[in-house]
Amino acid sequence: MQIGLVGLGKMGYNLALNLCDHNHEVIGFDLAEQARARLADKGVDTVRSLTELAAALDAPRVMWLMVPPGDATDATITKCLEVLEPEDILIDAGNTNYRDTIDHAAACAAHNVRFLDIGTSGGTSGARQGACLMIGGDRDAYELIEDALLDVTCEDGCAYVGPAGSGHFMKMVHNGVEYGMMQTIGEGLAIMRTAPFDYDLAAVCKNWNHGSVVRSWLMELIEQQLIAEPDLAGIKGIIGTSDEAKWTMQAALEQNVPAPVIAQSLFERNSSQMGEENFSHKVVAALRKGFGGHAVVTK
Amino acid sequence: MQIGLVGLGKMGYNLALNLCDHNHEVIGFDLAEQARARLADKGVDTVRSLTELAAALDAPRVMWLMVPPGDATDATITKCLEVLEPEDILIDAGNTNYRDTIDHAAACAAHNVRFLDIGTSGGTSGARQGACLMIGGDRDAYELIEDALLDVTCEDGCAYVGPAGSGHFMKMVHNGVEYGMMQTIGEGLAIMRTAPFDYDLAAVCKNWNHGSVVRSWLMELIEQQLIAEPDLAGIKGIIGTSDEAKWTMQAALEQNVPAPVIAQSLFERNSSQMGEENFSHKVVAALRKGFGGHAVVTK
Repeated sequence: MQIGLVGLGKMGYNLALNLCDHNHEVIGFDLAEQARARLADKGVDTVRSLTELAAALDAPRVMWLMVPPGDATDATITKCLEVLEPEDILIDAGNTNYRDTIDHAAACAAHNVRFLDIGTSGGTSGARQGACLMIGGDRDAYELIEDALLDVTCEDGCAYVGPAGSGHFMKMVHNGVEYGMMQTIGEGLAIMRTAPFDYDLAAVCKNWNHGSVVRSWLMELIEQQLIAEPDLAGIKGIIGTSDEAKWTMQAALEQNVPAPVIAQSLFERNSSQMGEENFSHKVVAALRKGFGGHAVVTK
Repeated sequence: MQIGLVGLGKMGYNLALNLCDHNHEVIGFDLAEQARARLADKGVDTVRSLTELAAALDAPRVMWLMVPPGDATDATITKCLEVLEPEDILIDAGNTNYRDTIDHAAACAAHNVRFLDIGTSGGTSGARQGACLMIGGDRDAYELIEDALLDVTCEDGCAYVGPAGSGHFMKMVHNGVEYGMMQTIGEGLAIMRTAPFDYDLAAVCKNWNHGSVVRSWLMELIEQQLIAEPDLAGIKGIIGTSDEAKWTMQAALEQNVPAPVIAQSLFERNSSQMGEENFSHKVVAALRKGFGGHAVVTK
């Protein structure tokens, strides 16, 4: 089928190629000329505006957004609704907060535009070769484009899970679980690295990935990283965050569900970003100086 | 090759059958007659004592212990050393503390008995169909029995990692990582269960197991459990513990490696075992009554 793909970053680009592999007609749009050019180089049609995109697509149009969450997605959806017509389908496949998604779905409904929210997992390799999609929103719209969704996902990796917001909520919690898994793998390997035995960490991960209880895709990923760089010497211990784990914690608080490991995993990332400017660490160091005259490290 | 298997519980039993599948000659021993009978019913020879086992095995003998860690393993190793001869091979494939393992290796060395410590992962299905083994100890002994070890493991699931203790240390940390993974999966599914959307948790896990970042054997296991019992209604929220996560934390403390998520996962299990008798929870409830007159739940 014909799909307008909006946002040609690393996820959108790979998804476009995946769709093309399965004989779908992709027309790509990105604000950045460079992103458009990169996809055009692969023989995929691109356009320079959402207006052009709407004109190029047959009705009912399918516009699939792979745009950063927040302002960029809000603005793109607003602009899309100016060019889409009743019965068209708008898909937000980014990491939008599910509450915003519910608002977006309402805005679409006011224009009689059908809306789907899709949580997309599996990283860039998944987008290219078989993603995992968690889909909420208009069921009729889902059924209309299901064949294309099945084409670009892993077997059993395409799930319609409920009304608007349910796809993004599920992806949000998925990311929270991911934070915890990553942190426990990190802690275990840090203990192995300073163990009283001299382990080859890549070999440890390789073993754990073959028949052990902790075998997992994340363990496979770190195995590959450790093969490439045994002590990860070139990587600083500063962990980026996106908002999904924070939102997962907000949901946990609202639902009165204890989730200490996901919280701690998020806090570890926050802490990693602060380095020596971590104010709570400064306070503890200052207190220790105060009551015991212990030395502090000064600037 | 010929292997004396000591300890015919759920792990030893499955491992015996796995070895037999690969045309190894197993002679089994267990203190419990019922365990011996269960294996004998499968056509495997069993004996009634370690003395009989030593007599039945050709030199150099291989005795493979799958015995609970602690006193049972200590006692079994002491008894094995009474019946084994120089050059024989003694394997401890249980979850022994690596410090005890180093002592066991020294005791074996005093008898010129060759020693291997094997951390065994993959559960009973792994023991039956292809385990993950983490092996420390006498390298010559490892090479002598490597073919049999390769037969009963997954491809790439058999790793010799260093001197005595290194196999059990690695298995200990593996279990610490496992605690963290299990806890983050538990927290995520608890949030999904009380979400503002009505999810089918088994379907959620199925989706996450196909192409997502959190795909893992543990997620597959819980998917199967949720299919069998959608709300886990028959399972109490009391989590058993073995000692490996506690030892992992002790190693983390000795090595000055922060491991808050593994610690928290262990504490959650401890907390789950205490129920309303959790004394720290009683203290907080009492304090709340004390300063605010808040109601407490009394016996």
